[in-house]
Amino acid sequence: MSGKEGPYKMFLTEAEMPTSWYNIQADLPAPVPPPLHPVTREPIGPEDLAPLFPMELIKQEMSQERYVEIPEEVQAVYRLYRPSPLHRAYRLEKALDTPAKIFYKNESVSPAGSHKPNTAIAQAYYNKAEGVTRLTTETGAGQWGSALALACKFFGLDLKVFMVKVSYDHKPYRRSMIHVWGAEVIASPSDQTVSGREILSEDPDSPGSLGVAISEAVEVAVKDPDARYSLGSVLNHVCMHQTVVGLEAKAQMEKFGEYPDVVIGCVGGGSNFSGIAFPFMKDKLEGRDVRIVAVEPVSCPTLTKGKYEYDFGDEAGLAPAVMMYTLGHKFIPSPIHAGGLRYHGAAPIASLLVNQGYIEAMAYPQTAVFESAMLFARTEGLIIAPETSHALKCAIDEALKCKESGESRNILFNLSGHGLLDLGGYDEFIAGNLVD
Amino acid sequence: MSGKEGPYKMFLTEAEMPTSWYNIQADLPAPVPPPLHPVTREPIGPEDLAPLFPMELIKQEMSQERYVEIPEEVQAVYRLYRPSPLHRAYRLEKALDTPAKIFYKNESVSPAGSHKPNTAIAQAYYNKAEGVTRLTTETGAGQWGSALALACKFFGLDLKVFMVKVSYDHKPYRRSMIHVWGAEVIASPSDQTVSGREILSEDPDSPGSLGVAISEAVEVAVKDPDARYSLGSVLNHVCMHQTVVGLEAKAQMEKFGEYPDVVIGCVGGGSNFSGIAFPFMKDKLEGRDVRIVAVEPVSCPTLTKGKYEYDFGDEAGLAPAVMMYTLGHKFIPSPIHAGGLRYHGAAPIASLLVNQGYIEAMAYPQTAVFESAMLFARTEGLIIAPETSHALKCAIDEALKCKESGESRNILFNLSGHGLLDLGGYDEFIAGNLVD
Repeated sequence: MSGKEGPYKMFLTEAEMPTSWYNIQADLPAPVPPPLHPVTREPIGPEDLAPLFPMELIKQEMSQERYVEIPEEVQAVYRLYRPSPLHRAYRLEKALDTPAKIFYKNESVSPAGSHKPNTAIAQAYYNKAEGVTRLTTETGAGQWGSALALACKFFGLDLKVFMVKVSYDHKPYRRSMIHVWGAEVIASPSDQTVSGREILSEDPDSPGSLGVAISEAVEVAVKDPDARYSLGSVLNHVCMHQTVVGLEAKAQMEKFGEYPDVVIGCVGGGSNFSGIAFPFMKDKLEGRDVRIVAVEPVSCPTLTKGKYEYDFGDEAGLAPAVMMYTLGHKFIPSPIHAGGLRYHGAAPIASLLVNQGYIEAMAYPQTAVFESAMLFARTEGLIIAPETSHALKCAIDEALKCKESGESRNILFNLSGHGLLDLGGYDEFIAGNLVD
Repeated sequence: MSGKEGPYKMFLTEAEMPTSWYNIQADLPAPVPPPLHPVTREPIGPEDLAPLFPMELIKQEMSQERYVEIPEEVQAVYRLYRPSPLHRAYRLEKALDTPAKIFYKNESVSPAGSHKPNTAIAQAYYNKAEGVTRLTTETGAGQWGSALALACKFFGLDLKVFMVKVSYDHKPYRRSMIHVWGAEVIASPSDQTVSGREILSEDPDSPGSLGVAISEAVEVAVKDPDARYSLGSVLNHVCMHQTVVGLEAKAQMEKFGEYPDVVIGCVGGGSNFSGIAFPFMKDKLEGRDVRIVAVEPVSCPTLTKGKYEYDFGDEAGLAPAVMMYTLGHKFIPSPIHAGGLRYHGAAPIASLLVNQGYIEAMAYPQTAVFESAMLFARTEGLIIAPETSHALKCAIDEALKCKESGESRNILFNLSGHGLLDLGGYDEFIAGNLVD
């Protein structure tokens, strides 16, 4: 607390913001296995995806170009909150008494409170540009639904959000945000779709899952020629849009005069993880010594205990099957607070890189994760999302390893979102009522 | 939406952060009338305030020095979130079709989500430095209580917060934040104090008020020799700590190449208003042409309908009487969502400047205010606090006047806090259930 320390935060100017996304498909050690048609199980082409996505996003999904330009209209909206700050966690380091340097990229500064608008804005823009008037989507804890609501409001699109029921009930303020930004939100499973009604007939009290909510959103979109579907994670183009996070972080680490020894992100579908990790993965694929760690909950251990195989992205099998780590598309995880990590699969690109040994995967139980989040709030001040807390827990463990070994290492994690609408989980932790 | 616009945000580096607060007492057109002892009605000296505050804050309360250095320990904590960004509201301007330029200083980026930590951190530091181990305070909507909890955690002080009951019941997540940062929070009126029990005996369902909560916090502090009391607004030293907001804003406006024609803040006790306004008021007192506008709710019209006279800061008359605009210390405002603006009095310095004609005061009903907040969320993205929305509504009205006259003017308002824990008010507005 004495002497001038700092800087605590590194900013970029808006002029220094990346003007292209990084497409890791250009640099992968092996091609991503193609998505298969849900019925024929044949590799699908652009025309198969056309009922779901606008053509530009389909192109990006398959693109092998290393850099894809960010349209000025998208950059203009990014400038409302980007570039986001990169922080050095001096106070956390001191509390841990570690020689490690801990850095975090703060994506909680977006209006929606997470990294999710980075792709929501891009997707809304491309849909609007191709004459789409309505989008449908799913959301877990509501981070994605609220981010897409924001983006659709900016580009004048209507939006219907299917929200996993357990979060719909526990996170009323996320619903409120979606309403403030003018979208409709429905608890999933719902009676508005065939797939929803099927689940409800088997279990009227189903807590829902991302897989079910995706089925519902896809079903509504394909039945409506003016509507398309929007996914907040998993897909190649979504992960690419998020690389603005890692590209900024790299430039900011450089301004700090540092490079990370380890880069950490939590994984639900894999978008915030890909965003922070892929620009550094590029260096790793070129031989640089940097560890990349993906962190998930033990209650939804996709990367650590799942199988690497073709599976559907949604519960009902309406979406294409992709090659990924999966717990099976019928898997319904327990209702942990990190609603955004309750997904049976993981991004095909991230899965490939886990399978080939470029990404380490690990899992934590939720009480350990909340304990880390409490320490963070009481040192760095920020109350972070339960999802993010998984990455934090790993960063803390890495810092404690440094304390033991005496080595100083640079640890970078993605602070993917704040937890101001997740305080119920903190309440349970403080009251000692949280279970793993 | 076309062509490169910007910058949307102006940042300062941490090195450019102000190192002194501005003490407007050095430049006032007339001295602030002295506080009077609550019983003898004689002007009080430092020794009378000693049971309530540490000596350094008492000195600051009476100081005539123009600049007071910010201790490095305080600056270090500021650096967790300061300097805060200054935004140009391009998207709002376009929606209003106004030639005006609208700027806002974004204090919602602090961990507590408002400007309140700016003084909380300073107060916790000075108390700690003088050997105090416990603080007591009151809070309305919870912004102040959570900010002081954060600050007390950083400096190792215990804290007891009396929270106005209507907010205690309606804003459970603000309570959670206070718990996350390790403080105790009690609904006020409570049965822990004489003043609380008196109110409860008259009206067991009393919604409470800031005046009552202050009485309770003061009562507990004066009875405990190791405790002091901390106030989040009103007092001269509190308003001075907040000038870091206006000092940064001035430097940022300069980087934009602009100077405001009008500076706007909402007023409860007056701290965020003073913070943004006083550094510009300095120029006005030196003859510069700049309007300074204070905005309050019609349901608590202190500056617009109150009397300028000596009154107690608290309901029970335990705190010193100060010369200010007041609705009477027994006034209990209706339970509007802008809990932070429900205070019967206003800062003595701001009151003096209103009385002498240097500050314009105006009031808005809450539905008009929420309507503005909705427009802001749907253009600029950010969901702002109901308190802040009063300043926004005034900024919008000023911009619409420019539209009518065709004049371009620079409008600056203080975005004092986010509304992520106030979404209940937005829900009511959207459902059409909000009353004035």
